[in-house]
Amino acid sequence: MLDNTLTTLLQIKYPIIQAPMAGGITTSELVAEVSNAGGLGSIGAGYMSPSQIKQQIKTLKQLTSRPFSINLFVPHPFDVTEDELIEANEALNPIREKLNLHHKGSTKLPTYDQLMENFNEQIETIIEEKVPICSFTFGIPPNNVIRKLKQHHITLIGTATSVREAIEIEKAGMDLIVVQGSEAGGHRGSFLNKNENGIGLMSLIPQVVDKVTIPVIAAGGIMDGRGIVASLYLGAMGVQMGTAFLTCVESGASETFKEEILHTDEDEIVLTRSFSGKWARGINNEFIKEMKQYETSLLVFPLQNALTEEIRKLSTTQNNREYMSLWSGQSPRLAKKQTVHTLMEKLITETITLLKK
Amino acid sequence: MLDNTLTTLLQIKYPIIQAPMAGGITTSELVAEVSNAGGLGSIGAGYMSPSQIKQQIKTLKQLTSRPFSINLFVPHPFDVTEDELIEANEALNPIREKLNLHHKGSTKLPTYDQLMENFNEQIETIIEEKVPICSFTFGIPPNNVIRKLKQHHITLIGTATSVREAIEIEKAGMDLIVVQGSEAGGHRGSFLNKNENGIGLMSLIPQVVDKVTIPVIAAGGIMDGRGIVASLYLGAMGVQMGTAFLTCVESGASETFKEEILHTDEDEIVLTRSFSGKWARGINNEFIKEMKQYETSLLVFPLQNALTEEIRKLSTTQNNREYMSLWSGQSPRLAKKQTVHTLMEKLITETITLLKK
Repeated sequence: MLDNTLTTLLQIKYPIIQAPMAGGITTSELVAEVSNAGGLGSIGAGYMSPSQIKQQIKTLKQLTSRPFSINLFVPHPFDVTEDELIEANEALNPIREKLNLHHKGSTKLPTYDQLMENFNEQIETIIEEKVPICSFTFGIPPNNVIRKLKQHHITLIGTATSVREAIEIEKAGMDLIVVQGSEAGGHRGSFLNKNENGIGLMSLIPQVVDKVTIPVIAAGGIMDGRGIVASLYLGAMGVQMGTAFLTCVESGASETFKEEILHTDEDEIVLTRSFSGKWARGINNEFIKEMKQYETSLLVFPLQNALTEEIRKLSTTQNNREYMSLWSGQSPRLAKKQTVHTLMEKLITETITLLKK
Repeated sequence: MLDNTLTTLLQIKYPIIQAPMAGGITTSELVAEVSNAGGLGSIGAGYMSPSQIKQQIKTLKQLTSRPFSINLFVPHPFDVTEDELIEANEALNPIREKLNLHHKGSTKLPTYDQLMENFNEQIETIIEEKVPICSFTFGIPPNNVIRKLKQHHITLIGTATSVREAIEIEKAGMDLIVVQGSEAGGHRGSFLNKNENGIGLMSLIPQVVDKVTIPVIAAGGIMDGRGIVASLYLGAMGVQMGTAFLTCVESGASETFKEEILHTDEDEIVLTRSFSGKWARGINNEFIKEMKQYETSLLVFPLQNALTEEIRKLSTTQNNREYMSLWSGQSPRLAKKQTVHTLMEKLITETITLLKK
């Protein structure tokens, strides 16, 4: 059942990728431990500046000499009026008041040009630092970016949530596709698929592998050997796991965040656009419930994300689970607090044992 | 990997159950062919009267001597005011006009007492007719019903969409649990789980099997050997498949309905409450789009279903795909028009081949 196309391409021992969770979760310790254990550690660099990326790569390279990957967000043009901004901001004011957050009344929002400039600088940094693998979410990077990265022999991974997206990723010349099932925690990687609820992996993997020729990596709800082996039989060549690594000792998620995942149920996990303007899956809380009425007033990603930044930061500092973004996939009952080393050993042993059955 | 607990309990050869799709799809030919091929055929009898059930069992018994099952809907009390009824009816009027449907202005809606009376008579019929297996959706039947059916040695299957629902089904003394993933077509079987989007099978199966001791059957998006083997590795003992059988030659779905599934994509399949008042998954069309604005005016199940009956019937007669309910799971690309015999042979061969890999 094990095919070595993917592991050969990525130069890793086991077809297990740690998902590039953004927002400080993918510490160098987490990433290095995954790569050192024979998987592929990934830096979630979507929100990072080029200098932050450089800094993390420097630290990371002291901890591992194995391959790792970096994930970037593909920016999309947007248009927001002053009135829309005021409305979106006002929707957040009752929550700011509740948290005694003295909002300045104006939030510095990035422009599309600034986002593209940062994106292009991120790409330059990745080339300079000779990062071996680069993955993308929220879209396909421009042709010239793909060409440039390939000239530097960087392996490229796209993220798809539908067959159509997977086909476009292959057409664009990328090397691998992560298919993100509806089970996945955090942001939906959709860019053509308008079906915000997502497609479950049981449906998504076989339909995608029937239509593309490049290797497919399954992501969403996979937490143990059972999920790995099931993904392989559905046609994937490997898996990408987020929540399972998020609760690990080495992850940068706050203790409150980790504990919430370890104590929630699968039916408490919902989809929301309220935190960032983009659909994302996490544990239900007051923020999500209170913001539901303002569904039509939310700004697009990443503007809404900028607007809610203060709220998310303050509530994280105060260990207030009600106003943090508690991203999680749909399998929280399978999450454990353990070291990456223990998790990786279990995953490998379980997979081998099941494949022998 | 194959465990014979489930097949022994159901007295079938292969752990493949044809889903009890309601509304005339599960013809006696379809059900008999599945059972004759060694799977478990099922009659979707939720909307049927006791005499219709009797009639179908009579026909079915002439076509097969193998076990089959019957599925019933568990009724729930409801309360609807005259104003709510008027509002829900008015929301449908623009569509009725478009279809030149001369609505009488009043639809005969069932009361909860009538639904319970019909349910109890359905149960009596099942006992009289010595149906070997009875499955339930939308809830757990009352204790006295479970007791009575068990006294007659009828095997009972419950339907769960979350771990909590699965635990309650086991507690109630039922024998088996169908876990319905978010991938599944048609009505969501949820009764405690308020997460309308559903939980994908990759997450649902392992989390459920870790918490119950009775056998679990996986349902949702499973179309071929890959889905069967994946479900077994995730911890299920068998599978229940709907859409794969719906497009079979023997199914009672209209040709328009079958063709729509055979020509749609996985990202065209959405969740809607508009047809019946209960969340269900099907192919997007004008009805779903036009009714979105009336989301808060819909009546509860099965009242909304009664209100839309004329529209659904007329558009089916007219082969008008825009106003029919085109239920489908999330794997339509894997659907084929074939005989049940061909489908069953492929499923068995593919499963055996994959398990040998």
